[in-house]
Amino acid sequence: MGPHPAVAAIRLAVRRVLHDVLTDVAAQRELDSLHAPHVDAHAFQTPHPALPAHEPPPSPLVLVACSGGADSMALASALAFEAPKLGIRAGAVTVDHGLQAGSDLRAAEVVARMTALGLGPVESLAVSVGRDGGPEAAARDARYAALDAVADRHGAAAVLLGHTRDDQAETVLLGLARGSGIRSLSGMAAVSGTHGRYRRPFLHIDRQTARKACMVQSLPVWDDPHNADPAYTRSRLRHEGLPALEKALGKGVVEALARTAQLSRDDADALDSWAAQAEASVRDASGRLECAKLFALPPAVRRRIVRRAAIEAGAPAGALFARHIEEVDRLITGWRGQGAINLPGKVVAQRQGGRLVIRQG
Amino acid sequence: MGPHPAVAAIRLAVRRVLHDVLTDVAAQRELDSLHAPHVDAHAFQTPHPALPAHEPPPSPLVLVACSGGADSMALASALAFEAPKLGIRAGAVTVDHGLQAGSDLRAAEVVARMTALGLGPVESLAVSVGRDGGPEAAARDARYAALDAVADRHGAAAVLLGHTRDDQAETVLLGLARGSGIRSLSGMAAVSGTHGRYRRPFLHIDRQTARKACMVQSLPVWDDPHNADPAYTRSRLRHEGLPALEKALGKGVVEALARTAQLSRDDADALDSWAAQAEASVRDASGRLECAKLFALPPAVRRRIVRRAAIEAGAPAGALFARHIEEVDRLITGWRGQGAINLPGKVVAQRQGGRLVIRQG
Repeated sequence: MGPHPAVAAIRLAVRRVLHDVLTDVAAQRELDSLHAPHVDAHAFQTPHPALPAHEPPPSPLVLVACSGGADSMALASALAFEAPKLGIRAGAVTVDHGLQAGSDLRAAEVVARMTALGLGPVESLAVSVGRDGGPEAAARDARYAALDAVADRHGAAAVLLGHTRDDQAETVLLGLARGSGIRSLSGMAAVSGTHGRYRRPFLHIDRQTARKACMVQSLPVWDDPHNADPAYTRSRLRHEGLPALEKALGKGVVEALARTAQLSRDDADALDSWAAQAEASVRDASGRLECAKLFALPPAVRRRIVRRAAIEAGAPAGALFARHIEEVDRLITGWRGQGAINLPGKVVAQRQGGRLVIRQG
Repeated sequence: MGPHPAVAAIRLAVRRVLHDVLTDVAAQRELDSLHAPHVDAHAFQTPHPALPAHEPPPSPLVLVACSGGADSMALASALAFEAPKLGIRAGAVTVDHGLQAGSDLRAAEVVARMTALGLGPVESLAVSVGRDGGPEAAARDARYAALDAVADRHGAAAVLLGHTRDDQAETVLLGLARGSGIRSLSGMAAVSGTHGRYRRPFLHIDRQTARKACMVQSLPVWDDPHNADPAYTRSRLRHEGLPALEKALGKGVVEALARTAQLSRDDADALDSWAAQAEASVRDASGRLECAKLFALPPAVRRRIVRRAAIEAGAPAGALFARHIEEVDRLITGWRGQGAINLPGKVVAQRQGGRLVIRQG
């Protein structure tokens, strides 16, 4: 008899991602070997002493980021099961945000559980959370900085994150509330970070399945009280917003939101690449943006070029809203002698002699 | 003292749209005069008898579609106020869907109110609502068919519809629930129908403003009980789904959803035009789609070409979901000898000799 369907589902999801990691590791080693000094029969040269020619490469290390919650406990258990079969070393990291009393004990408990699953190395990292961008953003920034540091130190090929389809749906709704276009609807990427370090194997797995997988494997899980605290936007969304939407629109909403994320991401990528290509063609000989040429582009492409130019001039991407871009766009599409437009980061946009000039004011 | 701010807002919205209508009418007449037979001094020809040369063109007619509810009553009042100042004749149509007892009396009442506003011609049209696509879709289809017929009969330059920003937000959420990509997030267009006949001046006006404008103008309004009936998806969304989302995400949700509609529409238009252009370049000499060339396109563009090809082969657009297109896409991106894929409308997609063949099965 095979494993419980929930366990089979999480293992399959992890197995697929580990295959991708192995493929990428092999490709990277191929690339490295091309650039490494090598023995050339026609030259008087010896191999680089630091690169012994025929020693087998170390087996790659994959880390799981685990909070002790159901999603990441399920992920850790699946990694511990699948990695050895593929010749991959599997370790774990838990981050102690220091935001709750006893969080250090909790972290030690997670370390013990990861070790019991057979994972190694296992690390606990204490971080100090700032206040920039609100409590959720500050905790996230601290967490990723810590994970980056651990991954670098161990030379990990990948760090697995336990975000589920439900998390993805919530992220799409949070993006929708910003009203800033399809990039903010594209949720979390399956692969992200430098060199695609972060992987999210559970983006198609629902929270219920992860929890079930822990239950049938008798893995104790910890319910973070933050997740139920109505002070947090995501928590309100999870416990009130999404259930009400499901009641109105039907049970398929979470899946529809997750699918929207993927489609929006692909669409946003395609339009970004179009804008990057088109940008060169709308500049004059001295590199200034020509309004007449911008006007001829589809609005979706034109606004992306304007946005890129504003960011290049120093406007912080996160503070640049759709309404800013719309106002600058009217210098192109509805020119009636408007004055300069102030953008975040002390950037100023104005029209001068048929050119759109965006620069630090 | 000027009018109440709510009245000023609805009048400004209508005035802007009427200006657009006049511009389009002038452009159309210019075009018509180019194509009409004309006196040519160098030819033995007389003017077309049906087109007397110097009679002033009739003033254009704009109709408002009015249910008697607050949104369309506000719209009718603003049209009655603004149209005469621009030399536009203003009329009204109300559609009796015959779905509720006394709906004929209600329609007669709306006609009386429209006439009292000084609008003319005013028509009431009884339609019979079928069952295709559910009660809401069937009522909508019957309504637009009736409006089209009246507009044609009177040669109306435009038909104004009272959809507000709140309606737009609901439409975006309904599209989101389908999970079929950004086109379904793009809500209702400000201009739609044959020759841009339908115009929605209130897409940036909220429902509250329309209601307020009726109140301060002492216009009686009718609350359609359907709008509060939880049997209807849109009604559940309005009374439960959206309020819960606002509670979780903040009051700006409706505005954010409406902005998302506009941005998504522009993005979808740009990608559709890209796909239309790219399509020719991925066909071989005999017009078949080449998988290798499709593979080289961005996924967002490739999937749109696949979708267009499926619809061209006879698959009904409304039944063609993202998961269908994804499966066909895997014939291109993940080829391992899959068999033919069945699509709605008895359309079959398969890979043959490096070509993607989509046709009636």
